[in-house]
Amino acid sequence: MRYAVLGGGKRLRPLLVLASCAAVGGERFAAIRAACAVELIHAYSLVHDDMPCMDDDVMRRGKPTTHVAFGEAQAMLAGDAMQALAFEVLTPDTGIAPALQARLCSLLARSAGHDGMAGGQAIDLASIGKQLDECTLRDMHRRKTGVLLQASVMMGAACGPASAQATKSLSDYGAALGLAFQVVDDILDVTQASEVLGKTAGKDQDANKPTYVSVLGLGAARALAQQLRAEAKAALAATGLADVSHLSLLADSVVERDN
Amino acid sequence: MRYAVLGGGKRLRPLLVLASCAAVGGERFAAIRAACAVELIHAYSLVHDDMPCMDDDVMRRGKPTTHVAFGEAQAMLAGDAMQALAFEVLTPDTGIAPALQARLCSLLARSAGHDGMAGGQAIDLASIGKQLDECTLRDMHRRKTGVLLQASVMMGAACGPASAQATKSLSDYGAALGLAFQVVDDILDVTQASEVLGKTAGKDQDANKPTYVSVLGLGAARALAQQLRAEAKAALAATGLADVSHLSLLADSVVERDN
Repeated sequence: MRYAVLGGGKRLRPLLVLASCAAVGGERFAAIRAACAVELIHAYSLVHDDMPCMDDDVMRRGKPTTHVAFGEAQAMLAGDAMQALAFEVLTPDTGIAPALQARLCSLLARSAGHDGMAGGQAIDLASIGKQLDECTLRDMHRRKTGVLLQASVMMGAACGPASAQATKSLSDYGAALGLAFQVVDDILDVTQASEVLGKTAGKDQDANKPTYVSVLGLGAARALAQQLRAEAKAALAATGLADVSHLSLLADSVVERDN
Repeated sequence: MRYAVLGGGKRLRPLLVLASCAAVGGERFAAIRAACAVELIHAYSLVHDDMPCMDDDVMRRGKPTTHVAFGEAQAMLAGDAMQALAFEVLTPDTGIAPALQARLCSLLARSAGHDGMAGGQAIDLASIGKQLDECTLRDMHRRKTGVLLQASVMMGAACGPASAQATKSLSDYGAALGLAFQVVDDILDVTQASEVLGKTAGKDQDANKPTYVSVLGLGAARALAQQLRAEAKAALAATGLADVSHLSLLADSVVERDN
């Protein structure tokens, strides 16, 4: 579990939780726990995705994947226990009001499960070798990647007293940013070397998976990423919150990243 | 997910939740959801345990295991999504007080994770071919099976206004029953045919796994099961609750079951 979650990574989801909490003036103790929980979910999903029965990848964050280092059975169990630990971290005996604990568990469970990350993965698997239209591709990526990124923003917002308008606009921001993240992922998969990515490049192409690049072409995918960044920033402006600078910078870093 | 969780089974954990809730006069709406959540966790663990990298079993509840029916990748994802769904079920928008939602999530997360079921599985895997003393064996089984059974009792109790004495005694009941369940499992693995069990018999013996039968012998294992039933019933008597008849019957059925 330590190897899988403490071995680096961009920590984008925890940063979104903390930036969103700061924007609404929320409780930092709760947000730190929410940040850990969402990263545990993300890290467990990578452990399972890399396994031979899924993407069969041997390299992640520049190191051997967890099942290569510890064996498949221990990797599967480590992933399982990391998902449970996420909910354990959200429900401490003291320090977070029970109602907030329940809200955070609700947001996380819904984004990780059948209508979110795991469901998106299942659609992804079923789509190998198929032609998808942009609408279906968008739904798959929304679930697979977007929903957990959006939930990160919402969990941060739940830690503070956000207005209905701010909550709605932060949700829009999270949705745009989540989709932008996946579009950029698809672009990097074909434009970057494995050494820069810290994982095997060109995997989606090799696996004949539909991606934004394969469906739209590289140029249109790049334009879509820029458009989504603009949408994310417009949503931030609509929150009415005084300081959304960190959230704005995170939108930039999602679109401008090179790994 | 439906195939894995709606395909039969004894439903022992849901019955424990509901019987415990009834004993303390708790809220039935919350208990029904807790019962579903704990069964989802149990069912997902069976899906993952049966996979080739773990126990590599092809038969469960008299049917092909989930990965045989749907493939390994879909089985792993279905299990992952079932764990998330358990926490989704515990956190509905209405109908359960937020503080109770948080308490139920806390109990379930701790029993499913590293210090409970998944951790016990990892110790189990690491113990193949090794000699374990009874103390280590007991700790492994407590985590692997006992903790989730005990949590089922505690989740039911959390749905009502249980006194500290009742809560403590119900916890003792759950611990004794959980251990009894595993002792009987080990006995059945060597005494019953696969057709009666609905799963492959003799697997533990074949895999050279330490069990209560291999460590204590069949006669002493049977005596231990009876002793644990007596301990469970003594704990029920100590609860001070008016009607613990269903919990008492469940202790009998755990020890007297033939599959």
